[in-house]
Amino acid sequence: MNTHYDIAIIGTGPAGLSAAINAKVRNKKFILFGNDHLSMKLEKAHQINNYLGFPGITGQQMQTLFQEHLKEMEIEITEKKVTNIYHMGDYFSILANNEIFESKTIILATGVQVGKRFEGEDTFLGRGVSYCATCDGNFYRGKVVTVIAYDKKEEEEANFLADIANKVYYIPMYREEVEVDKKIEVIRDRPVEIIGVQQVTKLIMQNRELDTDGIFILRDTISPSTLLPGLETNENHVKVDRLMQTSLPGCFAAGDIVGKPYQYIKAAGEGNIAALSAASYVDAKAKA
Amino acid sequence: MNTHYDIAIIGTGPAGLSAAINAKVRNKKFILFGNDHLSMKLEKAHQINNYLGFPGITGQQMQTLFQEHLKEMEIEITEKKVTNIYHMGDYFSILANNEIFESKTIILATGVQVGKRFEGEDTFLGRGVSYCATCDGNFYRGKVVTVIAYDKKEEEEANFLADIANKVYYIPMYREEVEVDKKIEVIRDRPVEIIGVQQVTKLIMQNRELDTDGIFILRDTISPSTLLPGLETNENHVKVDRLMQTSLPGCFAAGDIVGKPYQYIKAAGEGNIAALSAASYVDAKAKA
Ligand SMILES: Cc1cc2nc3c(=O)[nH]c(=O)nc-3n(C[C@H](O)[C@H](O)[C@H](O)COP(=O)(O)OP(=O)(O)OC[C@H]3O[C@@H](n4cnc5c(N)ncnc54)[C@H](O)[C@@H]3O)c2cc1C
Ligand SMILES: Cc1cc2nc3c(=O)[nH]c(=O)nc-3n(C[C@H](O)[C@H](O)[C@H](O)COP(=O)(O)OP(=O)(O)OC[C@H]3O[C@@H](n4cnc5c(N)ncnc54)[C@H](O)[C@@H]3O)c2cc1C
Repeated sequence: MNTHYDIAIIGTGPAGLSAAINAKVRNKKFILFGNDHLSMKLEKAHQINNYLGFPGITGQQMQTLFQEHLKEMEIEITEKKVTNIYHMGDYFSILANNEIFESKTIILATGVQVGKRFEGEDTFLGRGVSYCATCDGNFYRGKVVTVIAYDKKEEEEANFLADIANKVYYIPMYREEVEVDKKIEVIRDRPVEIIGVQQVTKLIMQNRELDTDGIFILRDTISPSTLLPGLETNENHVKVDRLMQTSLPGCFAAGDIVGKPYQYIKAAGEGNIAALSAASYVDAKAKA
Repeated sequence: MNTHYDIAIIGTGPAGLSAAINAKVRNKKFILFGNDHLSMKLEKAHQINNYLGFPGITGQQMQTLFQEHLKEMEIEITEKKVTNIYHMGDYFSILANNEIFESKTIILATGVQVGKRFEGEDTFLGRGVSYCATCDGNFYRGKVVTVIAYDKKEEEEANFLADIANKVYYIPMYREEVEVDKKIEVIRDRPVEIIGVQQVTKLIMQNRELDTDGIFILRDTISPSTLLPGLETNENHVKVDRLMQTSLPGCFAAGDIVGKPYQYIKAAGEGNIAALSAASYVDAKAKA
């Protein structure tokens, strides 16, 4: 399906949401990828004092206020995970849950990645390593897969895989109790290295090794250079100028992804700038 | 009076207020210069849709929310106009209504200046040209002064001068009706050039000339390089890096003063960054 947007916003934290309301104010055709819960980093905050206008509110209260702002402005969230973006010259092609979307500009607002990449992760990405169960699960019908999950909400993804694969190992990287399908084998260990030849064959952990055909690494965020190859980064952060332009024309970024301090209103302020920059970029192209 | 602060914040728009709440969260000793009305640019906005969390509110509602945030966090505004800042090596000396304050760091959040400077303004600054009636009014006892005012609120300053000077001319640069003391002569004309020898002698306007000993130019904002000599600027904007550091160590800036887009949440986001940068600067100095 090919839908041509002016602006595609990836991420529903404060940066992406602020970008969306400003894209709306500027009357652009845009799509907002993310999830209805907005951001784990909102949900999990106990008390927030430093977002000007909201003294001493909880993350969940802020989540509700943001959801109401979207509703008021009739902005919808497309609940899909973007796994790849391709720079096609004067537009971008976006892969989300195996569907293709096209947009003139991109705003990356995916937050910052926690945890380093594993040894072998980059080598076998697309050859047994995947970041999206919904997207790639079907390739593993009748096979053995391993899920490395950074958040309790990924348990649903593991259950989905258990219906397809022959065997599912589940390695929780979080503290909460694990509640998954009985068919799934839960292992508390620390992944160290991914091994393979053409394709993944093994996951080596601190105390144990697993023979596996596929490894799903489910973090909240994919590293920016994996998401959009060719993007200039600085350690794990996307390089931007004061107008939130990245090294790729038409690609903007905002929020934790562009660097510290990691803060709500800093992210929202940058989302505002990124949306106005993207809108100006679209307008300038239309005139040219 | 010498009071030593960690952080001095100049300006009570969204940038300065956001800096203040973050300085408070970081437990720094700070002072916030501005006015209890916060910012004209808040008061005058009819409807604001693009500040994430507040859909469709008026500027006055936002003003109230911000005032409540300050109250909740026990932050007080020092209602003084800063007319000069001097870089003293490892601290700053701040002149506000003829009082001196000292601070290790500065956050400039004074907004952006509207209107160009007049011919002769820079030459005669301090030699007949002044930006602050309360500060310099007493030098003009029994003399002739001219007030060029960019906002109705300056009428009060003109009335104050009318009690001191022998004659006050008042040139409103705004559209609203003028309501000043009867002794004051109101002139609707466009100032063009300031003339003098050692001191100011004349104001030339489009249609008329005035003999005058002093000229008070009352804009909401003083140009940054006049406020703090030595600061690197870019046209009328202060140059900053992504951590809101200016060219002078210990001096940070945020909001409209650092460049476009001119927007509330962009200003607030930058104020947040500036305060954290200033706090880190103070902490690093303390350790050194
Ligand atoms: C417990 C906790 C407390 C905090 N307290 C404070 C505080 O008091 N004050 C403060 O200022 N800051 C606080 N922070 C920091 C703040 O949460 C972050 O700085 C802020 O959330 C960053 O916003 P963001 O929009 O850049 O990214 P995020 O909030 O991380 O949002 C990114 C969003 O993008 C989505 N996403 C990522 N990749 C994709 C993809 N490929 N496809 C689709 N969607 C994707 C994610 O699911 C997520 O919803 C706290 C953080 C935590 C964890
Ligand atoms: C009518 C109008 C409508 C607007 N609508 C919107 C909108 O819908 N959305 C949006 O995002 N933006 C809007 N804006 C833009 C927005 O108002 C500005 O971007 C924002 O106020 C900038 O904040 P700031 O903190 O940088 O500066 P300002 O808000 O300009 O505040 C600067 C403060 O510093 C004080 N100050 C200056 N110099 C000194 C000194 N020497 N000593 C002491 N105090 C000093 C001033 O008195 C003022 O209170 C609007 C602006 C106007 C005028």
